[in-house]
Amino acid sequence: MPQIRILTEAELRQFVSLDIETIDAIEAAFAALATKPVAMPPIMRLDIPEHRGEVDVKTAYVPGLSGFAIKVSPGFFDNPKLGLPSVNGLMMLMSSTTGLVEALFLDNGYLTDVRTAAAGAVAARHLARSDASVAAIFGAGVQARLQLEALTLVRPIREARIWARDAAKASKAATELTEALGFKVTAHADPHAAIDGAEIIVTTTPSETPILTADWLQPGQHVTAMGSDAEHKNEIDPAALARADLYVADSLNQTRRLGELHHAIAAGLITANEGFPELGQIVAGLCEGRTSHDAITLADLTGTGVQDTAIATLTHARALASDRGTQFNT
Amino acid sequence: MPQIRILTEAELRQFVSLDIETIDAIEAAFAALATKPVAMPPIMRLDIPEHRGEVDVKTAYVPGLSGFAIKVSPGFFDNPKLGLPSVNGLMMLMSSTTGLVEALFLDNGYLTDVRTAAAGAVAARHLARSDASVAAIFGAGVQARLQLEALTLVRPIREARIWARDAAKASKAATELTEALGFKVTAHADPHAAIDGAEIIVTTTPSETPILTADWLQPGQHVTAMGSDAEHKNEIDPAALARADLYVADSLNQTRRLGELHHAIAAGLITANEGFPELGQIVAGLCEGRTSHDAITLADLTGTGVQDTAIATLTHARALASDRGTQFNT
Repeated sequence: MPQIRILTEAELRQFVSLDIETIDAIEAAFAALATKPVAMPPIMRLDIPEHRGEVDVKTAYVPGLSGFAIKVSPGFFDNPKLGLPSVNGLMMLMSSTTGLVEALFLDNGYLTDVRTAAAGAVAARHLARSDASVAAIFGAGVQARLQLEALTLVRPIREARIWARDAAKASKAATELTEALGFKVTAHADPHAAIDGAEIIVTTTPSETPILTADWLQPGQHVTAMGSDAEHKNEIDPAALARADLYVADSLNQTRRLGELHHAIAAGLITANEGFPELGQIVAGLCEGRTSHDAITLADLTGTGVQDTAIATLTHARALASDRGTQFNT
Repeated sequence: MPQIRILTEAELRQFVSLDIETIDAIEAAFAALATKPVAMPPIMRLDIPEHRGEVDVKTAYVPGLSGFAIKVSPGFFDNPKLGLPSVNGLMMLMSSTTGLVEALFLDNGYLTDVRTAAAGAVAARHLARSDASVAAIFGAGVQARLQLEALTLVRPIREARIWARDAAKASKAATELTEALGFKVTAHADPHAAIDGAEIIVTTTPSETPILTADWLQPGQHVTAMGSDAEHKNEIDPAALARADLYVADSLNQTRRLGELHHAIAAGLITANEGFPELGQIVAGLCEGRTSHDAITLADLTGTGVQDTAIATLTHARALASDRGTQFNT
């Protein structure tokens, strides 16, 4: 009789976190996207305007992986008034061979947080200077913290700066991250000061107007913009994309529509059909990443279904190996 | 702490079946589709050709309902070689107010079977003669049996005929249905003979070439075609659509693309933009259903997300009322 393994967020947090194995799994998923006949349908979107709600459904099949994930990500922006988080949701993992549901991860977005941060690490691995030691993070939420942690796993980070619109949150995050990571993390009131001298900049905000101005960029800097996953979001001055020596998309189909690239196209600075490398092509060696010490590089990450399939596959393997969660007969 | 109620197929079968309350719930969903700002995104489709697999994801938000369903329907056509059913899958019900997952129904397609048969009953209620007593069913599978059962709930059926490509299956279904329903159900080797004199015809096959010929139709007959849910499927002679006095779609957007209408348009018998009533408009009284004893009517059902949301909402209400299933803290 088929069984489904069900894991709650609390259970998942016990054995899935941001580590090198996770980063490697996400990296492999990007390479697959560039080299295999991955099936990744457009994101399904349901809007519930009465409750300021939206639901995204993502999926991707990666040939060679034993399962594929379907992820349901609701965002309901009046939830905080009810004492609930805005974002929740789950992932399910289905067998690639039979379509049977193998596992349900009731993760409330936790696995998405981890796979999103892991993608930041993959971008830094291939695009940031190998000696990068100073990081600047825009934002002070869960993803801001995870992105900094991700950088420490792939680059010799010794110092970090946090800028956030809410200075108190930035200060609190800086204090906590200093303790957690064992190096100095400081809060900055001015985003320009925060990035001055940093080799890696990660923007994690839901901003709808650019925070990072093109003129601020210095030779050798790498920027990962991961806040924009919808048409109206925009963290990076469109001119910064034109100025960068190398622009890299997680999925060009998506960044042309949802990412920072979308705004540079809308501003007329880049043509709609201009080609750029995708992160997976760089991982797979089909395109070059950073080619010089002084290049300015920019990764535009909108989040892809292959990342979900990769983290769900890894999570399932670990859950099986240590027999975690609850088994349901179906 | 949010909780999710999880129910297995076996549990669901204990308290959800084809009954008048279910038919009424599906009927109300069709009316909502015609009268409210329902949000029903296009079906998400993932293909896994290596394993002859396909996955459909459907969803719909119906204003006024406390929840909305997301349904995942995999079909993997090599599964029977492994001793597994081709079709499995699940539904989840999310709160329309918060997006939180309220319930998971690990139904393996059972709720889809029920809501699909219920739609057949709704079509018969509004389109078949009120004195219809003889039914003909094409097909001998689960849906063939359920469609006949559905008709008995809304029309005074006293006799039924089964035609199926596999005569042995038709014979077995006829014997079992005679016993289950308490009236004579006979297997016919010839589809024309099967429908001769029947007031209601329901076609439930996955046929890719028409089985029902236009010339066979007799005054007063109603046809529900529910087998076609994909571009290549086609049960009804396109000329039959042109001949019918009234053609009704569950969703014109879908039947123009996936249903019998699609083939009549392709054959040049009906123009692509010709307007037809939808079943919900008839339920809501916005369009007329059967207007005469002798009219030939034809309902083209492809399956809609609002039916899933309706059956999931009803199922959840019943599960709550009798505290069924397993509660998970998330």
